[in-house]
Order: sequence, then structure tokens, then C-alpha cells
Amino acid sequence: MPTLHLTGPLGTSLSVEVPDERDMLTVLRRYGKSGWTSGEIPPGGLQLPLSMADLFDWTLIGARAYTTSDGEQAVMYRGQSYKRRELDEVDTKKLKLPKIVKYSRGARPTDPPHLKEGEEGGVQYVTLISFRGGGRVMDSYVDPAKQAESRA
Amino acid sequence: MPTLHLTGPLGTSLSVEVPDERDMLTVLRRYGKSGWTSGEIPPGGLQLPLSMADLFDWTLIGARAYTTSDGEQAVMYRGQSYKRRELDEVDTKKLKLPKIVKYSRGARPTDPPHLKEGEEGGVQYVTLISFRGGGRVMDSYVDPAKQAESRA
Amino acid sequence: MPTLHLTGPLGTSLSVEVPDERDMLTVLRRYGKSGWTSGEIPPGGLQLPLSMADLFDWTLIGARAYTTSDGEQAVMYRGQSYKRRELDEVDTKKLKLPKIVKYSRGARPTDPPHLKEGEEGGVQYVTLISFRGGGRVMDSYVDPAKQAESRA
Amino acid sequence: MPTLHLTGPLGTSLSVEVPDERDMLTVLRRYGKSGWTSGEIPPGGLQLPLSMADLFDWTLIGARAYTTSDGEQAVMYRGQSYKRRELDEVDTKKLKLPKIVKYSRGARPTDPPHLKEGEEGGVQYVTLISFRGGGRVMDSYVDPAKQAESRA
Amino acid sequence: MPTLHLTGPLGTSLSVEVPDERDMLTVLRRYGKSGWTSGEIPPGGLQLPLSMADLFDWTLIGARAYTTSDGEQAVMYRGQSYKRRELDEVDTKKLKLPKIVKYSRGARPTDPPHLKEGEEGGVQYVTLISFRGGGRVMDSYVDPAKQAESRA
Repeated sequence: MPTLHLTGPLGTSLSVEVPDERDMLTVLRRYGKSGWTSGEIPPGGLQLPLSMADLFDWTLIGARAYTTSDGEQAVMYRGQSYKRRELDEVDTKKLKLPKIVKYSRGARPTDPPHLKEGEEGGVQYVTLISFRGGGRVMDSYVDPAKQAESRA
Repeated sequence: MPTLHLTGPLGTSLSVEVPDERDMLTVLRRYGKSGWTSGEIPPGGLQLPLSMADLFDWTLIGARAYTTSDGEQAVMYRGQSYKRRELDEVDTKKLKLPKIVKYSRGARPTDPPHLKEGEEGGVQYVTLISFRGGGRVMDSYVDPAKQAESRA
Repeated sequence: MPTLHLTGPLGTSLSVEVPDERDMLTVLRRYGKSGWTSGEIPPGGLQLPLSMADLFDWTLIGARAYTTSDGEQAVMYRGQSYKRRELDEVDTKKLKLPKIVKYSRGARPTDPPHLKEGEEGGVQYVTLISFRGGGRVMDSYVDPAKQAESRA
Repeated sequence: MPTLHLTGPLGTSLSVEVPDERDMLTVLRRYGKSGWTSGEIPPGGLQLPLSMADLFDWTLIGARAYTTSDGEQAVMYRGQSYKRRELDEVDTKKLKLPKIVKYSRGARPTDPPHLKEGEEGGVQYVTLISFRGGGRVMDSYVDPAKQAESRA
Repeated sequence: MPTLHLTGPLGTSLSVEVPDERDMLTVLRRYGKSGWTSGEIPPGGLQLPLSMADLFDWTLIGARAYTTSDGEQAVMYRGQSYKRRELDEVDTKKLKLPKIVKYSRGARPTDPPHLKEGEEGGVQYVTLISFRGGGRVMDSYVDPAKQAESRA
């Protein structure tokens, strides 16, 4: 039987069996709602197509979207808050950059060095996830509530 | 059957099955009373709401609260002592800081660099847990004895 | 029953049983097609014989070959793109170097230092796989579609 | 069934089931006699009460006590030799230090930095275990042969 | 049932059950012949008695002995070649060093720092295994073919 390996809000390490493999994402979502995550976010953050930026189901990684007191969109992941940043497309003769939506936070002294982006000595940050590129919507990663909205 | 992964006081690595998932915290508490922990405390320490500062059940992470010979409140976790520090709320025109209760200890030369907080060359410390913010009491993490007290 | 340990595109950590050991590579390929990988690429990258350079089945490591918009051959592995580079044989009186085909990418600030090759301060890169040396074709690692081609 | 995770003298990674949880330490001792260990010694070394210094059962961590050719007491752990050092109690007006018995070795270039104690550039060492403080004898960790001796 | 944790030539992470514990080394040898290894070589390399230098069964760690084109004895382990070096006994008034047989290779830029021996900036190397000291032949680690030879 497939077995998911999970980390809880207190750091607890737990393995749970998934009776039917087709239910794996369901189990991940159920635990994710209580802040449990599976595995590690890779250094530099996850990468998903831009089309997922407003559809991604945060419970799949044990995260939770919320709006800060300043009205900013953010995501809480393992006790840290990551803010949404939108980098507009640049399309000039000199420079071509695609549109990117990313969730990142300022680096903390206790972050391992290889997670920190930006110049040493300057402002450094840690990226949770970047949405970029022309890939299609990945249905299995879509938040059911958002899908309903986007279809309405 | 869910399986908890534990580390013992001698570093022993053990996995134990939890017959019913609802008993997971009970099993964690039972092992925690003998100093067994599950998983790792994340760099920078755990984060719980301030309302949990006097209610948290330390056995959930294999820790034990005690009073030092100087009368200070402390917690023993994996052979290291972490002292309770209370950072009062600051609410001036210049600075707004919430009340924080944290358990931390002075850094040791053998601590991995990414666990050490404070300036390099200056005083550095390692945080086990911070209680901050307005979250509600998390019933499942409350020490039964303390809950009884707080309701008395 | 043998158990494969896998990492998914969101970092998800999953173990799956392989009913018959002879099916292990089949299971690895099936998950690899959806971007799941097993274990870690060793620092410095994988090493296979040169004869495998055009036959290797990328699904065995959860990677996917594609052609960039510039017409270059590349491989997508865990959200990163690695370009094919061919180093021709050098056979002069002064220097003898064998032909090498490697897939590598420029280093990113978030790569752990021990993955980065090339001089610090200069151009650094990360190698996914090198094909070099006179070893025989490893049948079990060959992409069935490519094998058919190469025999046609 | 509880499962112990072990590392063998060749680095082999093995998990073994413990039929009855009460037999866990017995299984640990049986493997430990052949140099198998479970888990990792934490950075800075294990901490046990001073009362255990002459009673600890080294097989619980896969170590073996012996006397060097110079007549010194030492312990062999994972291919490295740790010597017994006794730090006497200091009780002056200026300084109060408890008695400590520790097993340590000189640092090697291949030791990860966070295991090395002492000043960088000066003499550095790695501690396996420290016996200090007034805790009671932990019966389950006592070497049966030594217990018999100490009671004789 | 005991379970062995293995790493394959492509980095694949696999666990296999060993029906009878007495067959553990047999299973290790069978996988080792195809380049599978279990666990990690400790920093600084494995340590075995000198009496094992010509008898050790390399398949136990997934390695393979061969002779280089220059006629040197070497061992291939996880895609890297380690050469045999013999350090003769030194027995003068000034210095006493035992005979050592070791297999090592030059350090590569992608080796983690704590694996590299020798002075930083100078020649650095990585040791796979050292045979030294007066220990007895460990029968269970002997290559059956070599044992037959040595007895002939």
C-alpha cells in the first residue's frame, strides 16, 4: 500500500498508508488542512505554470492563504509568512522577461545559506513557489473552491 | 496503520505503529514522558499562539518543564536547557511589538550555524519555541494538568 | 515486498510497494513520467557509458527530454532545465581527452556549494549526468522508443 | 510492531522489528555487540548523569570499552577511539564547576564543523558522551556485568 | 522481517525485506554486484583490520575491484575510482607508524568539505576505506573467491 511521509506542525514525523493510490492527493489535502506537509520544498522553491497562480490548492503543501492586516495576499507555510509578489512582463528591445507570480519572504538568520536568494550583505529572501511559463492548468493541483469560482 | 518516527534519549531511531489515528498524540505523549521526540524542531524554533504559553504540553516534543536552582522557569529538551524569556509588548509611536514568550538558550560551538540567532561574533542563541500572536488555544496541544488548573 | 521511495513534483514524499522485484524499473518509469524521482542525484551528477548518450530513458529519474525554443536539446529535471553539451575527443601529443556528452545548467545562488562545479567567482554549473567511457549499452536503462529507432 | 533503524559497521542501513516493545533495549544490545548503532549521537555528545559514568552499557550505542596500550580507558565507537577524561569538581570563591566524566577524541579534518569543540585554529575535539549532574542511576541503561560488580 | 535500505546506480532509493536475518549479507552481496549500496560511507572512510586488505568482499558496499590501464589496483564505487595506496610501516627512533593499505581518490570540487582530507589549498583526497591495525580476519566480510585463493 502506498505510504505518505508527513511532518506535523510540531515537527512530528508520521507515515500514513493510502488505501488506494488514487486517494493520495485527498489524503495530502486532509492532512494539509491541519498544517501537515510531505517532504521538503526544493531550494529556490517550487515551480508551477503561471496558469496555476490563482488556482493552486495550498493544502497540498500544508500551507494556508490569507490576507495580511495591510491587505496583502500571503501564504502561511510551516509557521512562516510568504507574500505574493507579481513581476510584470517586460518586453522591450533590451530585455524580455515573462510574467512571474511568486510567494517569498525576507531571509532570516536561521535560514540555511543555500535557501537565501539575493546578494550576500544585501536584501536576501526565500522563495516558496514561483508561477511562470506557459504550461497548462494541472487539474489535480487545483483548489476545488477556486475552480468553481473561475468557472462561474 | 499510521507510524510515528521517534528519536530516543540515546539517539536511538525507532518507528512505532499507532493502532488508531486518534491516538497519535497519546502515543507521542507517552514516549515524550521518557524523553523521546518525533522529527526535528525547525530552524528558528516552533511557533505557537501566545495563548498556549502557559498551557502547552511539553511531552508532545519530549521536553520537560522545571525550575532552575535560581528559580527560573526552564525546559529540558534533548539534554539542553532552554530558559523562559518574556518580551513585553511595545506600543509607542515609534515601535509596535507584540508580547512574546520564548524558550531559548545560549548558542554552543557545536550548534549548526543556521540554528544560531543574533549577530555573529556577538551573543548568539537558539530558540526552541516562541509563543506569539492572537491565535486561539489549540486544545489538542494543551497539557491536561494545566488545563484543569486554568479552569479551576 | 520491495519498496520504492519517491519524491513528487511538489516535494511529496511517498513509498510504494513493488509486487515483483522484476517490475521495479517499470514502476520507476511509470512514476517518472509524472515527474516523480527516487533518491538523489549524487554530487557531480550520474555517470553512464557514452553508448547510452542517445538511448537513456529519462523517465527512470523523472526527467523529460525536450528541445528549447533555440533548437537546443535539453532535459527538464525537478523544475530545472539542463542543456546537452558535447565535448569532442581530444587526441594530440599534449592532451588526450575522451568524448563526453553531458547535461548541465548554470549554477543558481540557491544550489548547495558542493553541487557547483567551476571556479568560485567564475562561471559555475551543475551537472545532471555525464556519458563517457567505453562501457556497453545497459539494456535495462534504454528508452524502448529509442531502442526501436536505433535498431531501425 | 516497533521497528529499530540501525547502521552497521560497513555503513549498512537496516530496519529490524522488535516483537515486544519491552525487548527494544535487548535488541539494541544484541546488535550493538557487533558494532551496530541506532540513530545519531547529537552534536556535543550524549548527556547522562554522573552516576552512570561507571555503569553505562556501551553496547546500547554500539560502542566497546577497552584499555589502550598506554593504560588509558577508552571507548571504540564507529571506528573512532574516544578517551576518558575526568574533570574534577572546582569549588572556589571564584569558580564553581561540577565533576564531569567525558569521552572525547581529537577532531579530524573530516569531522563536520558543528561537531568540533574548542577554538578554531586551536586544539579541537569531538565529544561522544558527558556524564555530569546529580541524576539518578538509569537502571535500563546499566551494563548488567557492571551492576553486578558495583553491588558486590 | 529485517529490511535493507539500498541506493541504486541511478540514485534510486529502495527497501528490500530479508526473509531470514542470516541472509542479510547474501542479499547485500547480490545487490552489490549490480552497484547497489546500503547506507553511507562515514566521513574519513571505513576502517577494517590490515588482515582484510586482500580479502575484503567489495560487493558488500556495491564496489568493484579492477586494474587500471596503468596497471594500478583500483576500486569503482558509485561512479568514482579509488586507487590502492600502501603506506609502509615506519619504525625509527623518531617515528612509529603502522602499515596501512588505503583506497582513496583526489578530491573533486563537488565533494562536501568534510569528506576532503589534506590541507585546504593543497592536494586533497577522499578515502573510501583504510585497512590498518592487528585485528583478526572477519570471516563474514571475506570475498569467497579470495578466501579460496588464500587457502590454496
